[in-house]
Amino acid sequence: MHETLPEFEMIARLFAPMAGEGALGLLDDAACLRPTPGHDLVLTKDVLVEAVHYFAEDPPADIARKALRTNLSDLAAKGARPVGFLLGLGRSPALDTEWLTAFAAGLAADSRLWHCPLLGGDTVRTSQPFLSITAFGEVPAGRMVPRQGGAPGDALFVSGTIGDAALGLQLRLRPDLPAARSLAGPHRTFLLDRYLRPQPRLALAPVLLAHARAAMDISDGLVGDADKLGLHLGREIAVEAVPLSPAARALVAAGPDLLDCALTGGDDYEILAAVPPEKAAAFEQDALQCGVPVVRIGTLLREGSGAVWRMGTGLERRFARRSFAHF
Amino acid sequence: MHETLPEFEMIARLFAPMAGEGALGLLDDAACLRPTPGHDLVLTKDVLVEAVHYFAEDPPADIARKALRTNLSDLAAKGARPVGFLLGLGRSPALDTEWLTAFAAGLAADSRLWHCPLLGGDTVRTSQPFLSITAFGEVPAGRMVPRQGGAPGDALFVSGTIGDAALGLQLRLRPDLPAARSLAGPHRTFLLDRYLRPQPRLALAPVLLAHARAAMDISDGLVGDADKLGLHLGREIAVEAVPLSPAARALVAAGPDLLDCALTGGDDYEILAAVPPEKAAAFEQDALQCGVPVVRIGTLLREGSGAVWRMGTGLERRFARRSFAHF
Repeated sequence: MHETLPEFEMIARLFAPMAGEGALGLLDDAACLRPTPGHDLVLTKDVLVEAVHYFAEDPPADIARKALRTNLSDLAAKGARPVGFLLGLGRSPALDTEWLTAFAAGLAADSRLWHCPLLGGDTVRTSQPFLSITAFGEVPAGRMVPRQGGAPGDALFVSGTIGDAALGLQLRLRPDLPAARSLAGPHRTFLLDRYLRPQPRLALAPVLLAHARAAMDISDGLVGDADKLGLHLGREIAVEAVPLSPAARALVAAGPDLLDCALTGGDDYEILAAVPPEKAAAFEQDALQCGVPVVRIGTLLREGSGAVWRMGTGLERRFARRSFAHF
Repeated sequence: MHETLPEFEMIARLFAPMAGEGALGLLDDAACLRPTPGHDLVLTKDVLVEAVHYFAEDPPADIARKALRTNLSDLAAKGARPVGFLLGLGRSPALDTEWLTAFAAGLAADSRLWHCPLLGGDTVRTSQPFLSITAFGEVPAGRMVPRQGGAPGDALFVSGTIGDAALGLQLRLRPDLPAARSLAGPHRTFLLDRYLRPQPRLALAPVLLAHARAAMDISDGLVGDADKLGLHLGREIAVEAVPLSPAARALVAAGPDLLDCALTGGDDYEILAAVPPEKAAAFEQDALQCGVPVVRIGTLLREGSGAVWRMGTGLERRFARRSFAHF
């Protein structure tokens, strides 16, 4: 039933066209990367597994884009410019020629869009398909924006809007979700799209390099991820300051308990950054200028102050579960 | 039944101890690698899947070592010095705390042995466990030993002995293999060990850098892999010149059809290299000096001469299957 594409032919026909110079035509044991003098290399690896990180029935081109973009999101958070990626592909028999062709087309389009050529990889046989991408970026030497930075008093910013993807996932997992019954069609489409097609905030990378003292991408839920930025410090965050899209706002209004899902569900691929107070205004302005609005949601506090999420009433908001966990 | 180790605890307790400086304590989105000025970075990715590349019942420490060593073998073939690796781990519920602890111990031991620190990675949930390692090495700029090099007249060398691992795998897959009935115990142990614990030929890397015009590691079987070195050229190889261990020799003597398995089965992780004739003697001598004997098995020929495997009788030897194929 399924036509199986031989590995050599798959590489030559589908992957070689998106290969960069250092890939040596994908005909070598390894790739060769010449670093730009005076720069550090930023390395990141995000693995996506079918039925865990995406649905088997998702369009293969979108699965490819998601696999690359979750990695590019990490590079963006570090202030890095992408220079290439390696692809590890776990193939089941169901990934036939048609699937692989559509997958490669999506990957090639994104590879061009983000100026991130394929450098090499490996394909293996498996029962549960997976995508293991390693992406490489560059920053001027010593300038990578760390996650364990920041200082008491730094402003905490997030990019874009939070919770859309987690709510989009709920719409797929629970088609009869009561709160979604009266959700407008365009809102539904928007949330589903945010789950399926994350937007890596690479436009923000130079702005983070210029102003941020710490940054990370939000992939496992804002509440839990915020705990991990400047681990040793405390923080206070205003629940109502967290930017929600009109679609998320509409859905949460119809089902207030969905706010927890939005704030802890993950798959946002937005940026959380700590910016010194004297640079906050410039950060906000530069971010807007490059097309990625950022919003201040809180402040880093001195060590030992804990992580407090505050409601408009002044009361503390607590969460049963802070983030997505695999185990 | 199985105790599940939370991701954060697993990273802090098991993986952080083998982390390199650029890993930032495994507490960041990404790792930071400062390339040595005047060097190129060599990138390689080999993925291992349970029940495809290893047995679920193999000792976890050996699985870890194999996953790292298959990657180090690629670096060795390129003449590179390892500088670090990223680990993608697909965890099933069966990989409990005990398993993970043994796995990490094996990985840490090898990480030290080969001076190749852990830089980062990702852990995900899956039904069929896998290990997706990306390893990084360095070579002086422009000096990576390519696979698509070599010139007509170059001598073809292989390191170590060929076929041991493929025969060892046969011993495991076919416990009642007639040819193995009278195989001496130490021979059996040797072949099983060669399958379980590949030896990356990193000691040979500087020798390859100094003398080889092309090189690759042999992972999918010598016959098929030899086709891929200097793809555009022809080659003639003497079947009897291929170095076999005493154990392989004994097993093949008892079952002559197993020679095909030895030459096409794969998992050798030895080096195949093309060396200009005027450097052949020095290559052989330097290799011996660094503890990795190499043997000349043939010669590269001009384009269009095909790939001929010649027996002592002068007759051509043909192979039904040239190498291991996933698809």
